[in-house]
Amino acid sequence: MYNLLPDLSVVEVSSFVASPTAGLYLAQMGASVIRVDQIGGGQDFKRWPVTANNDSLSWENLNRAKQSLALDLARPEGRELLVELAQRTGNLVTNLPAKGFLAHDRLAAGRTDMVTVRIMGWPDGSVALDYTANAAVGYPGLTGPLDDEAPVNHVMPAWDLLTGAYAAFAMLAAVRRREATGLGGEVRLPLTDVAIGTVANMGRVAEVLYTGAERERLGNAVFGTIGRDFVTRDGVRLMLVAINERQWEGLVAALGLGERITALESALGVTFAGDDGLRFTHRASIFAIVEQAIGALDHSDVAARLDAHSVVHGRYQSMVDAVRDPRLVGSNPIFAELATNPSGFAYPAAGAFATIPHAERLPPAPAPRNGEHSEAVLSERLGLDSGAIARLVDAGVVGVG
Amino acid sequence: MYNLLPDLSVVEVSSFVASPTAGLYLAQMGASVIRVDQIGGGQDFKRWPVTANNDSLSWENLNRAKQSLALDLARPEGRELLVELAQRTGNLVTNLPAKGFLAHDRLAAGRTDMVTVRIMGWPDGSVALDYTANAAVGYPGLTGPLDDEAPVNHVMPAWDLLTGAYAAFAMLAAVRRREATGLGGEVRLPLTDVAIGTVANMGRVAEVLYTGAERERLGNAVFGTIGRDFVTRDGVRLMLVAINERQWEGLVAALGLGERITALESALGVTFAGDDGLRFTHRASIFAIVEQAIGALDHSDVAARLDAHSVVHGRYQSMVDAVRDPRLVGSNPIFAELATNPSGFAYPAAGAFATIPHAERLPPAPAPRNGEHSEAVLSERLGLDSGAIARLVDAGVVGVG
Repeated sequence: MYNLLPDLSVVEVSSFVASPTAGLYLAQMGASVIRVDQIGGGQDFKRWPVTANNDSLSWENLNRAKQSLALDLARPEGRELLVELAQRTGNLVTNLPAKGFLAHDRLAAGRTDMVTVRIMGWPDGSVALDYTANAAVGYPGLTGPLDDEAPVNHVMPAWDLLTGAYAAFAMLAAVRRREATGLGGEVRLPLTDVAIGTVANMGRVAEVLYTGAERERLGNAVFGTIGRDFVTRDGVRLMLVAINERQWEGLVAALGLGERITALESALGVTFAGDDGLRFTHRASIFAIVEQAIGALDHSDVAARLDAHSVVHGRYQSMVDAVRDPRLVGSNPIFAELATNPSGFAYPAAGAFATIPHAERLPPAPAPRNGEHSEAVLSERLGLDSGAIARLVDAGVVGVG
Repeated sequence: MYNLLPDLSVVEVSSFVASPTAGLYLAQMGASVIRVDQIGGGQDFKRWPVTANNDSLSWENLNRAKQSLALDLARPEGRELLVELAQRTGNLVTNLPAKGFLAHDRLAAGRTDMVTVRIMGWPDGSVALDYTANAAVGYPGLTGPLDDEAPVNHVMPAWDLLTGAYAAFAMLAAVRRREATGLGGEVRLPLTDVAIGTVANMGRVAEVLYTGAERERLGNAVFGTIGRDFVTRDGVRLMLVAINERQWEGLVAALGLGERITALESALGVTFAGDDGLRFTHRASIFAIVEQAIGALDHSDVAARLDAHSVVHGRYQSMVDAVRDPRLVGSNPIFAELATNPSGFAYPAAGAFATIPHAERLPPAPAPRNGEHSEAVLSERLGLDSGAIARLVDAGVVGVG
């Protein structure tokens, strides 16, 4: 948590990963983020992993540092309160449909400079999830073992997360424009456009049109340079990348490959120095030489040699290893132990990814209980008095947690 | 391209993917982004994929809409020009080392409210790349076919891209703070912190500490709900997800599974309605039933049935399919044909992922040639006259392209 955005308030009407991620990043940088949910929780409120009490460890981590307003969104009164709150706040991030009751034009009718960031599936309003956007753009077919042809889904929902981060960026960009010009507006961000736009940004739309052909599957090798996973004599699997000249020279020196690489160059009639692409082209031979060298050494030896020559490498860790790795969690200042999670389970909670050396890092905050801030939000934001709030609670329009 | 950030200038000193992505997103939203490179191009200038002339299709897509200043960064004169430009501009995004000549404190000595966003490997300054950060946090071990144990790398560099998007967001947050308080500062963003912070945000640090165990590998199945890939009678592989109650009911209805699911519930003594997690627990049986039903129908029939019941599905496309899919590229307004790419190859170029219905989308801009804007930048930003610039060019300190 950093306090970079103390004067920014955002209403978030969200489910699952992308839209909550946008709110999370904003909240962790100090914005006041009010997440509005159905009383009792929306469709992501029990998303796995869950505890024995069915409290979602997913939900309580994607919604840290937010306030919770619980409304009955199936009823007109609940929806009207949400519309009014969005208009008063002026900033909304949501994944609700573009033509529903949170349509931007409806909100802008009551607040002309309204900023809405809307995460969508397809641009036409059709539903897409991370998994189907990924299937559409072709990455699964390029992922996975060399000896297999079946597509491999990613496990980390990369499109959701990238879309969430971009949405947080787009919110700040749109707010900045409003402050300069008085203009609000809606920013629509379809998962499928983030996915195919990324394919383009990586040069792959151009590549497909240039070559006219599908790229071959590479397993764990890195395209266009020397990088792959290798296993040491003592069975440690590591990822190794020599992505520039210095690292290539370092790799050859670290593992004492000079003579064999020279022999390979003679055999092939090529010179690898200065040509990353040429090394990639002949990767099968180079990999065989590296594999043999690494397979003859223990990991500690390999690591020391590669470190001494500034070659990038890292061992594969299980997620259990990762969580127990003090570099990543235990001694990492982005984490702090937190006992006030809604689940009641105490564990190290993450704050903002970023570290600002000259600013104070505030400790991570817990996610709210459903409706925990209903009374405060309705009072402070909409000016409702306690009697009015009590009547809404009694009528089942507002939930308090 | 949208013109949301017309008054923002950013100097980018970058290589590879994460840091250029931050500059790209800012430029596509209208910021003036000056990329500073070694004369002749930095270490990513020929990154594959390349054309027959060795022009990088990667570089020219990650650096659209930026200006290029080429300097000899190996020489003090070149470095001093860059330091001065960064200080005059006030905003720097870079992946150069924290303790090098672009150290924030050095920049801030000449510009007290300097904002630096620095993308790093590990927080201590050790090098990590997307591939090694990924290996460290455990996703590869959870990715890939069920019958395989070897880790599977992602092909899309998710950590680079997420870090780049977060860096663009962090830049706007830091600039906003400066405008409110006069305070600059450095924002450090290590790839490994983005990676383990994401593991945490997805609930998985909590999960590992709660269960004490590694999650099992799921192949292409989605954790905690019903989702997987299936193949139709005519051989089309599709991803299918029923992530809420309505979609689950839709799936059962669409494929006429009512009787078999009821029989399965009777056999198991459970009721699937209302319990996503229970369906996941018994996914093997449910998948077998769905697999048989989908395998007995052609894709057109499956798609029509699923659409009629609002079940989320999408076919796996190769990247060639994706680039030829008019929904994604040909008829997608985020793309526009561009003939002025540095490679000389004309193809549809992507603009901002976001669409702003009430604002004008400006066409995508090409990446610059190395040093294309050197004279303009040195003149406009540093006030150098043409004689001074000519002397720097003659001395080999400045490159013009």
